[in-house]
Amino acid sequence: MDPIVIGIDLGGTNVRVGAVTPSGELLASDKAPIKARRGPQYGLTRIIELVEQVRASTGERPLLGIGVGSTGPIDRERGMVKNPYTLPTWENVSILEPLREHFGVPAVLENDADVAALGEAWLGAGRGVDRLAAVTVGTGIGTAFIYRGQIYRGFGDHHGEGGHMLLDPNGPECYCGGRGCWEMLAAGPAIGRLAREASAREPGLMLELAGGDLQKLAAHHVVAAARQGDPVALKVADQVGMYLAWGMVNLVALLMPECVVLSGGVMESFDLFEPEFRRVFYRHNVMSPVEQIHIAHAQLGSQAGILGAARAILNSIGENNVEPIPLRR
Amino acid sequence: MDPIVIGIDLGGTNVRVGAVTPSGELLASDKAPIKARRGPQYGLTRIIELVEQVRASTGERPLLGIGVGSTGPIDRERGMVKNPYTLPTWENVSILEPLREHFGVPAVLENDADVAALGEAWLGAGRGVDRLAAVTVGTGIGTAFIYRGQIYRGFGDHHGEGGHMLLDPNGPECYCGGRGCWEMLAAGPAIGRLAREASAREPGLMLELAGGDLQKLAAHHVVAAARQGDPVALKVADQVGMYLAWGMVNLVALLMPECVVLSGGVMESFDLFEPEFRRVFYRHNVMSPVEQIHIAHAQLGSQAGILGAARAILNSIGENNVEPIPLRR
Repeated sequence: MDPIVIGIDLGGTNVRVGAVTPSGELLASDKAPIKARRGPQYGLTRIIELVEQVRASTGERPLLGIGVGSTGPIDRERGMVKNPYTLPTWENVSILEPLREHFGVPAVLENDADVAALGEAWLGAGRGVDRLAAVTVGTGIGTAFIYRGQIYRGFGDHHGEGGHMLLDPNGPECYCGGRGCWEMLAAGPAIGRLAREASAREPGLMLELAGGDLQKLAAHHVVAAARQGDPVALKVADQVGMYLAWGMVNLVALLMPECVVLSGGVMESFDLFEPEFRRVFYRHNVMSPVEQIHIAHAQLGSQAGILGAARAILNSIGENNVEPIPLRR
Repeated sequence: MDPIVIGIDLGGTNVRVGAVTPSGELLASDKAPIKARRGPQYGLTRIIELVEQVRASTGERPLLGIGVGSTGPIDRERGMVKNPYTLPTWENVSILEPLREHFGVPAVLENDADVAALGEAWLGAGRGVDRLAAVTVGTGIGTAFIYRGQIYRGFGDHHGEGGHMLLDPNGPECYCGGRGCWEMLAAGPAIGRLAREASAREPGLMLELAGGDLQKLAAHHVVAAARQGDPVALKVADQVGMYLAWGMVNLVALLMPECVVLSGGVMESFDLFEPEFRRVFYRHNVMSPVEQIHIAHAQLGSQAGILGAARAILNSIGENNVEPIPLRR
């Protein structure tokens, strides 16, 4: 029987665990609430139980290792989460130590955006490409880059922050010290702001859907109203499409990836932003053949984290035991 | 005796040729005008003569291969220059074929920005770093990226175009289809425009140095006047520093390099732009430790092209025969 690795997707709310073969077959998976407030001891015990369970359901297959993708920032070297917001009380606690000890196998910790992108590069929308950029748009904008089947890392292991590219010097101030960062223009909260600005000028269906309360107007109202053809909402959707394109132009100018994979809550409604996105993005085709760049939806959904974490430990164990991600040339 | 490789730096005006050992010692070099208008036959004959000459002056050392860095864009695969502006008449002529035939050794063709960066990574300002970004500011802005001692290439061998990152939606239109691209804000011609705008509002030393003719005002007048402490010129220099920082913030957000090496005519006066550059760039330190990123001047001057081209052929011949670029961890 083929051996397995375990992929763990550790979020602020739930933890998902999956058993994956080296060829990318997900044999079993399960999830449980992480109850971050009950502390890491509780959470780690639950994780170990889940791993035991999932592993048991795959028979007697040998376990090669465990990969963990966690809401960041993280300290890979020490195997620790450094985010006091999404996993309070977990700071300065090694996630890997108990796993290594209990299961006697190697384990790695990676940023969740990185493992999701790695999953897509292995088994999803970015299968077979040498350069896969990933853009996640939700509460913020996160970026990741998979180069030749490996997570691209910045110096000192620092993670890229594509969401904080400066795009408009007259845009809103950002907590990062900049102004008009990508995520201040096109992430969920920014879409809410654009909707409030538009509705203050021109009240319409969006405002109605928000119960007439301008302050309650949020991104999902834009989506709902635009789906019904509301002209004010469609104008906001065009603005979002334009802002998404601006950031994408810059990302492409530096990375020149074959494919950009989109994910996150906002991107579930990408079809609404897409006409203006395409108009603006593909206009920049003089310097580089952007029309050849494939802009694709993520395909692995909630399994991206598990599969990418599994791939991360496979990459770490060494190429000898693992089939490399097949590359198109 | 150590073997040698030949590095060739092919520009629109001159060609430089050097003999370099695998450990990076430049044993001999020479240059000659390329006289692009006389056609590629003339130029290629001159290049072969120069190589013979330089090679002869290093004794009987075996020749391992030839690297060429050329003003781009280029077609690496076919060994051809695709730039009708800087090397007219050279289009659809293989540069590598005659070299391979005459010398019976392997030869590679690379973009000049890439080889200059590779040279700096090997023997100059970026020695020993895993991730070196290079920014050349002159008539335009070019970027290159050396990752683990190798030139980073986009999909389909397309070269990155960091100079066309969008930074200001209200900025001047660019030939690339965008508006407010980095090079439209901070390259030489943009500095001239900023100077004309400033002098139209507030005539001062810059305008005087340009003979009172607003239309003749160019980047070098800004530098000359700022060196004399002219307040209008210093304000323009601050603007340039700010624009340089904006692009750098975005480049760093995606690539997170240890070091960015600066070159090109405009960057020779970087000290004038540096105070405002530092103020703006290092303000963005919340999301990533930008204060740890080394912003350095290029160190190899006019030898960067030769040395980088030499390294390119060494990389191509294969790591077995070549000492890898030593990496700091």
